[in-house]
Amino acid sequence: MPKVLIKNADVITLDQPDEVLKGSDVAIADGVIQAVGAVPDGFVPDEVLDATDQVVMPGFFNAHTHAPMTLVRGWAEDLPLDRWFNERIWVAESALTEEDVYWGAALAAAEMIRCGTVGFADHYFWMDRVAEVVEQSGLRATLAWCVFGLGAEQEIGGTTLDLTVDFVQRWQGAADGRIHTVLGPHSPYVCSPAFLTQVAEQAAALGVGVHLHVAESQEQVDNSLAEHGRTPVAHLARLGLFDGPAIAAHCIYVNDEDLSILAEKGVTVASCTGCYMKLGMGVPPLPDMLARGINVALGTDGTASNNDLDMLEEAKLAALMHKNARLDPQLLPGDLVLRLATQNGARAMGFPQSGVIAPDRAADLIILDFHQPHLRPRHNLIANVIYAAKAGDVRHVMVAGRWLMRDRELLTLDEERIIYEAERRAWRMVGEELHVVREYQG
Amino acid sequence: MPKVLIKNADVITLDQPDEVLKGSDVAIADGVIQAVGAVPDGFVPDEVLDATDQVVMPGFFNAHTHAPMTLVRGWAEDLPLDRWFNERIWVAESALTEEDVYWGAALAAAEMIRCGTVGFADHYFWMDRVAEVVEQSGLRATLAWCVFGLGAEQEIGGTTLDLTVDFVQRWQGAADGRIHTVLGPHSPYVCSPAFLTQVAEQAAALGVGVHLHVAESQEQVDNSLAEHGRTPVAHLARLGLFDGPAIAAHCIYVNDEDLSILAEKGVTVASCTGCYMKLGMGVPPLPDMLARGINVALGTDGTASNNDLDMLEEAKLAALMHKNARLDPQLLPGDLVLRLATQNGARAMGFPQSGVIAPDRAADLIILDFHQPHLRPRHNLIANVIYAAKAGDVRHVMVAGRWLMRDRELLTLDEERIIYEAERRAWRMVGEELHVVREYQG
Repeated sequence: MPKVLIKNADVITLDQPDEVLKGSDVAIADGVIQAVGAVPDGFVPDEVLDATDQVVMPGFFNAHTHAPMTLVRGWAEDLPLDRWFNERIWVAESALTEEDVYWGAALAAAEMIRCGTVGFADHYFWMDRVAEVVEQSGLRATLAWCVFGLGAEQEIGGTTLDLTVDFVQRWQGAADGRIHTVLGPHSPYVCSPAFLTQVAEQAAALGVGVHLHVAESQEQVDNSLAEHGRTPVAHLARLGLFDGPAIAAHCIYVNDEDLSILAEKGVTVASCTGCYMKLGMGVPPLPDMLARGINVALGTDGTASNNDLDMLEEAKLAALMHKNARLDPQLLPGDLVLRLATQNGARAMGFPQSGVIAPDRAADLIILDFHQPHLRPRHNLIANVIYAAKAGDVRHVMVAGRWLMRDRELLTLDEERIIYEAERRAWRMVGEELHVVREYQG
Repeated sequence: MPKVLIKNADVITLDQPDEVLKGSDVAIADGVIQAVGAVPDGFVPDEVLDATDQVVMPGFFNAHTHAPMTLVRGWAEDLPLDRWFNERIWVAESALTEEDVYWGAALAAAEMIRCGTVGFADHYFWMDRVAEVVEQSGLRATLAWCVFGLGAEQEIGGTTLDLTVDFVQRWQGAADGRIHTVLGPHSPYVCSPAFLTQVAEQAAALGVGVHLHVAESQEQVDNSLAEHGRTPVAHLARLGLFDGPAIAAHCIYVNDEDLSILAEKGVTVASCTGCYMKLGMGVPPLPDMLARGINVALGTDGTASNNDLDMLEEAKLAALMHKNARLDPQLLPGDLVLRLATQNGARAMGFPQSGVIAPDRAADLIILDFHQPHLRPRHNLIANVIYAAKAGDVRHVMVAGRWLMRDRELLTLDEERIIYEAERRAWRMVGEELHVVREYQG
């Protein structure tokens, strides 16, 4: 792997609070940051990148998404949650094939790299095909094959717990360690207590974590109290789901006791602000979670509800929503919100060496082009990133020391073919007579 | 002016509800749209633009901003409103010069064109210099010179009402009608009733409108009730401020009677969602305003509080914030929110021929590049624009039939010089010893 020297960059390290190193060099070898600032004696780079007027920072980790759902982006708009799912999303997903999953995930990977994401926690079906995309794209990912516990004939892709266990074993540590796997029971409102107990036992036996949906609505909480005598969080904790590493997506409706459990068990809460706002789902108590020391990470959720995979936007929305929900502009300051979007997600996904620009850390970084009117003047680089920068300002993306994008060109994926195949399949899923499908010209 | 034929575009017209014309042509001559769809016989274009896989829509109108405040972008972060103003913004603005206003507005104009804005309602000081920028840039604008009514020696730039009246007369209808002018009393919480009465009389005599700040906090409402026995809206109405065209920025804290007054008087409410969220100011009753038939437009406010001039983001934030504030995902659907960001602003600024792609309408349009992963598949072009597109996806911008940006290149402004001059001045305003000011290389 070539040695790379990034010269004269402004670096948002996310190491010390609010640390920005101006006009700094970053030396990279063997997938690891060797030095920031002074280049070590004897470091002979194979490649030098002049990053004058550009900003280096850790790449984003998307802690909760369903990558193949790019195929239903924009297919269910301005609807209540029940109609959103029953009339639109479920109808489209019922036409899903295994091959669609590959192309939907590939479209997601292209989009994620373009907006500076270096790793993602995915939760969907036919996950071997998503793993293939991760392997090819050069991204990091923590993959969960979603299972409802209803029996193969009632599940997308004939899923069973055994099948998802096989998936975990098949792909754990693949792609030079860029792929992690966990178990993916859908949620306590779909999965039975008996099934969740099996999942917890299997996860413990495999030594892996779980990734699931928790407490998305007050109705779910009320039903859990009525059926199990416990909140969803307490119910899951009792069944052992939080005894290993866990990503609990959402946790919008949680009480004080729930927060204590999440903190004590070291559960990561993956918060998906854009989705909550778009579907009118409410405001999770993020400031309280942070005050308790819970590892809060950010996710986009699937593009059916967001409608994109843009973590920079997700960071901005998190800051904005929580400041306004409590009428307190001091909440979620810039440095903190960038940590949620990067290192907290990385930690949740089992990549603790990522999310910081410092020696001996993984070379998972992005470079933003600040030579643009909306990013000047440079009074506060962190504020400019969160509140003024856009996904398109990400110019270069590196994961594990390898460039995935240089000068806005994707280096690992055939973007033209992906756009063509994904859109063609998306149109077929919803009824292709609605669209004119063009011949592939690529 | 050359005749332009845009071929094979997907057109979001904002004419009929949810109307999208696929693979359509748009013919433009004399600054006006001649035809959409079938090109008229005898239309011989000077220029043909192939817009396959691109989306044409009306350009954005920013109904409330302070363009020169780009110079303090990022200079006051994560602070309560009083400290934000007293410790940071006011300190920087006290170092402002007339020449700074020109370069700050020029930086804003470059940014606005790049993100698809074609017109803006500005409210600041030394507005002749902003008018120069509008003239040069090719944008449309409705300009108000801000005045407090405290006497020249206590105002930025030695402003008096007479001076702002002269400004209105000097620039009204300039730049081939692209510049409109109105009076700009700051607000009912700064300006005295006697002064506001003078402003209303002058506006009536000149036949122009007003643009001012209204009801940004509950405290302002409480003070108004205590001092004047009326809410800010009722107070202004009684003093005659709403007897002509009026842009009332904010109106966050308004009651039912206020809404009746705003509707009856035909006042435009300019709502700046990003600013309210970032400064934790609350949620205005936008759905109620819309239900009353009030002309609601969107604005970015100044970049000190937003921190950019991106109306596409502002449209998205408005939809997201109001859906979640009332837990109703059906509020502010896509077509509506694009109208707020385009034609409602245009109407407020006195450009009612803008904001629609249809024959005989002004050729104020933008073209977004949809050949990108995050904008596929194209199930719903309007949703893709609001929820997935970014400012950087705007590829071409036309105002009054003239290209201001082609293929992301600004055609009317010297962007390199603007970036250099604006940042140099911004650093001087806050103490240039903090920064290394580079020599201009342009």
